[in-house]
Order: sequence, then structure tokens, then C-alpha cells
Amino acid sequence: MEVTRRGRQEQVERTRQRILQTAERLFAEHGVFSISNRQISEAADQGNNAAVNYHFGTKSDLVRAIVRRHAEGMDVIRAGLLERYAGSTTLRDWVTCVVLPFTGHLESLGLPSWYARFAAQVMTEPKLRELAVTELGESALPRAVTEGVHRCLPGLPPAVRDERDEMAHTLIVHFCAQRERTADPRWPATADGLIDAIEGLYRAPVSASAD
Amino acid sequence: MEVTRRGRQEQVERTRQRILQTAERLFAEHGVFSISNRQISEAADQGNNAAVNYHFGTKSDLVRAIVRRHAEGMDVIRAGLLERYAGSTTLRDWVTCVVLPFTGHLESLGLPSWYARFAAQVMTEPKLRELAVTELGESALPRAVTEGVHRCLPGLPPAVRDERDEMAHTLIVHFCAQRERTADPRWPATADGLIDAIEGLYRAPVSASAD
Repeated sequence: MEVTRRGRQEQVERTRQRILQTAERLFAEHGVFSISNRQISEAADQGNNAAVNYHFGTKSDLVRAIVRRHAEGMDVIRAGLLERYAGSTTLRDWVTCVVLPFTGHLESLGLPSWYARFAAQVMTEPKLRELAVTELGESALPRAVTEGVHRCLPGLPPAVRDERDEMAHTLIVHFCAQRERTADPRWPATADGLIDAIEGLYRAPVSASAD
Repeated sequence: MEVTRRGRQEQVERTRQRILQTAERLFAEHGVFSISNRQISEAADQGNNAAVNYHFGTKSDLVRAIVRRHAEGMDVIRAGLLERYAGSTTLRDWVTCVVLPFTGHLESLGLPSWYARFAAQVMTEPKLRELAVTELGESALPRAVTEGVHRCLPGLPPAVRDERDEMAHTLIVHFCAQRERTADPRWPATADGLIDAIEGLYRAPVSASAD
């Protein structure tokens, strides 16, 4: 059977997407380090056990491809929010810009999704985190959001402010990972709860000893 | 060489402790599901590769033993705090009772510790979480702390209150796991930062949509 060049390209793209989705599910369920490229190739119904290696290269390349795909989805939402809240001096607007790119992107993935659990591993495992940072570089949009938050909190000591940034991200990623494991994550309600809580977290007075 | 009964018992106890500590470190570094009983036996310098099975049984039994050991350590701290703050109606006192048993126990373990990362996995993996719940049952002291927090927040809708309890625990465990990965976790300062932030998280107003 003759396959046209265009048909062949489309088939390759379908195979790549199928591998990416299968890898993400297996990584989320069993852990990135517990799953081999061979297992992903088999679970993605690829007759050739080296399909992952052929299409992506190493496991690090595969992880980078997953990270990039979702980062792009979140940046679309983030860009819209930044346009909407540009110039705002209201903390809640900026906390919304912190939370919604993640929860909104998860919502867009439909049910079930696996990305929150994958992201929790990327946040947790130093090797994966380094891969993600290298892949995404110093991304401009997340930086703009962080600066927006900081402009609303001029009185907070920088060390406390940075610690709270990290707490907010830790809470968002791991709380969403827990919600994702349930049958009904209810992303919009989860987002509202997180925005309320994280605004409170940032506004909390600093006790003397933590200063 | 003759070994007295008492000497033999002490040797068994040393072996058990050595296995527990080795298991916890390997679980923290590589994930509970990535490590076999045989690997733990080997890393604990047990000539017999079945030492874990002989001393503990299955991997579930081993996980339960680790969970119980730390739960007891945390309950000692928790009991002291409950005595100190009994009858308090100040939210900060009760948030202190939420945070300090974990950070104080971690501090008591010295450097490096592995328990925060182990606990993060127990919180994250449904199978491990179920094991821990079954092992510890409905523990009285953590329940008393939660009730103390709730008494300070009579106006919070129960669904929001329960969600914030879960957020607080998620934040404590995963933030401490991140701190534990650094060379200098500074547990007292970490505790102060968490108490401030979690008090703010509980006090945050509830937006209409999240109600």
C-alpha cells in the first residue's frame, strides 16, 4: 500500500500524541522513574518496542516534550489574564493569575486528566524540576505574574515573600493533584477555594521570629 | 560463641532498627514502589537477602512499622501542646498544634532526615494512605487538634473548613518535604513561616462562589 507523504506525516503526529498521552498517564499513575520507554511503547500499542526512542529519544526528551506541551497551554490562559489585570493593584487579581492557568488548563484537558499528578512529580523530584527549568528557561509570563503579586505586598520582607510564593505553588500543585485523583475534581470550585486561601496566606501578618 | 538470650534480643532489635532506617531512606529517595525488600536487605548490610521478610513480613508491614514509629513521636509533641493550649480560643495556638508536631518531630530526627519525603508519599499515594489510616485508626490527639481549630472558626461553612484542613495538611507535608531536600531545612523558622501562612489561610474570607 502506498502512503502519501502527507498521510505519513499525519500518522507520525498521531503516534507521537498517543505516546505522549500514554506516557503522561503511566508517569502519573506509577511515577516517572518506575516506567521504562519500552513499557510506554507497549501501552501505546506500538508494535515496535523502541517507538518512544524513535519518536522522542531518551526519557528526559519525553519528559521535556510533556512539560512543554502543558506550559504552552497554561501560557495561553496566563496571557489572557495578564491582559485583563494589567495595572491592577488588587492582590486578589494577581492571585487569580497564579491559580487559574493551572486549574483552567486542567479543566481544558477533560476527565480524567493526569497532568496535575505529573506536575506534582516534576515539582517534587529535583532531577525532573531541573529538566523542566532547562526546557522552559526564564519564562516571561510567570515572572510577570509573580511581580504583580509582589507589587501588592510592598511591606512583606523579601525572604518571607519568596517563601510564600513557594508555599502557594506547592499548595496549588499538590492540592490539585489530590483533586485530580478523585472522580470529580470540580476545577472551578477548586480554583475559588485556592484563590481565597492563597490570598489569605499572602496577607497573613509576619510574626517577629519569622521576619 | 554462645549468645545469651538477652544479647540475642538486643541484636534483633538493632537489626530491625537498621532495616527501618534504611528502608525509610530508600523509600524517600526512590519511591516506596520502586524499592524491593531484597534491595533494602542488601543496603542494610544483611547477609540474608530475606532479612526484611524475616523481621517485618511484607512491604506493607514495613511501611506500617515506619508510619507507627513516627506517629508515636509526633503524638508525644502533640500531647504536650494539647495540654498547654487546652481551652484556648486563639486560632494561632491551634494552628501551632497542627504544625509543630510535624516540624518538631523532624527536628528531633537530626540531619539528614527522610521522614518528610516518606510522609509526602504516604499522603500522595492512595494505597499508602489507606495503609497508614488502617494502622493508626481514628487517632484521638490529631482529632482533638482539628476540633480546636474548628472551634475558633464558627463562621466558616463546614465544606470550606474541611477543604482548608486538607490544604493545611497538604502544605505542611509537601513544603517540609521540599525543605528536607535542602542541606539546611531550619525547622524552627520553617515552622514559624508555616504557622503564619496557615493562620492566614484559615482566616481568609470566603468568596461567594466558593461558599
